[in-house]
Amino acid sequence: MAVPASFEEKDFLSCCGSTTFAKHMVTASPFSSLEHAISVARDVWFNTVDVNGWLQAFSAHPQIGQQHAPSHASQTSAQWSKGEQSTALATATGSSLQELSEWNVRYWEKFGFVFLICASGRSTDEILAELKRRYTNRPIVEFEIAAEEQMKITELRLAKLFSSKESIPSTTDK
Amino acid sequence: MAVPASFEEKDFLSCCGSTTFAKHMVTASPFSSLEHAISVARDVWFNTVDVNGWLQAFSAHPQIGQQHAPSHASQTSAQWSKGEQSTALATATGSSLQELSEWNVRYWEKFGFVFLICASGRSTDEILAELKRRYTNRPIVEFEIAAEEQMKITELRLAKLFSSKESIPSTTDK
Repeated sequence: MAVPASFEEKDFLSCCGSTTFAKHMVTASPFSSLEHAISVARDVWFNTVDVNGWLQAFSAHPQIGQQHAPSHASQTSAQWSKGEQSTALATATGSSLQELSEWNVRYWEKFGFVFLICASGRSTDEILAELKRRYTNRPIVEFEIAAEEQMKITELRLAKLFSSKESIPSTTDK
Repeated sequence: MAVPASFEEKDFLSCCGSTTFAKHMVTASPFSSLEHAISVARDVWFNTVDVNGWLQAFSAHPQIGQQHAPSHASQTSAQWSKGEQSTALATATGSSLQELSEWNVRYWEKFGFVFLICASGRSTDEILAELKRRYTNRPIVEFEIAAEEQMKITELRLAKLFSSKESIPSTTDK
């Protein structure tokens, strides 16, 4: 039988860029299953990480449609962002990318953080429509929606993290 | 007839330490009445100031029971804080102040911003009970409550601002 996969702070930081989140996940490790890890992650994110930690996590994301992740984002995080946006990039035209970029700037100016959406499987047009719809929200309402989106992204990334470790055979395996 | 009192950015900053708030209030000036100013202030605070602006405003407050305002708070703001806490300070014993100070630290550690309460007319014991009750909240819930308290403080301070200007006769007065 394999021992539970063990992860470090940097692994959890790749899933969610809040250091409080990553530290609490390490403390709660090891997890008996992905479901267990997700359940703890939700509790930490919504009940323990403070609003500064939410902003810190948001700041680790590139703008949707942008090629470059923030310099403080981990390599794994940057790579995952790219993968999550692959549908959007495949369906993007030059003009829709241009419009998305302009709306990202407007969004940032209004809310003070990057537009966050769980982009997996969404086209550029879908993302743009959602950005325009959410732009009308009050700042505090949008802040909570962004936190929900971050949690969806975190769950997908935790799944990737767990599946990446599953293939490594445990040294105590017989 | 007196002309509407005119205020500068620093006047509004003394009411609420968000620069976005103060700039918008200047742009919306002059106000026909205190009620008009409060109505605009509520709209700006809840619909325009972003979450970073909320945190900026919170950071301009001293801890309840603390003598010193943050170094970046204006002199007027520091003086008003003192006045607003006069009931609390008059009813405080050494041990209740000590307990308040300890709970303020715990609150800060959990939420990442100072405990904010419209302290006018409240005793130290009332404030301490409220702090302990609110400490159990989720960070995002507490963030919104703090913003509501900030708005109450802002309203009281706008009233002080308006009454301080009323006594100055307008140069166009006959």
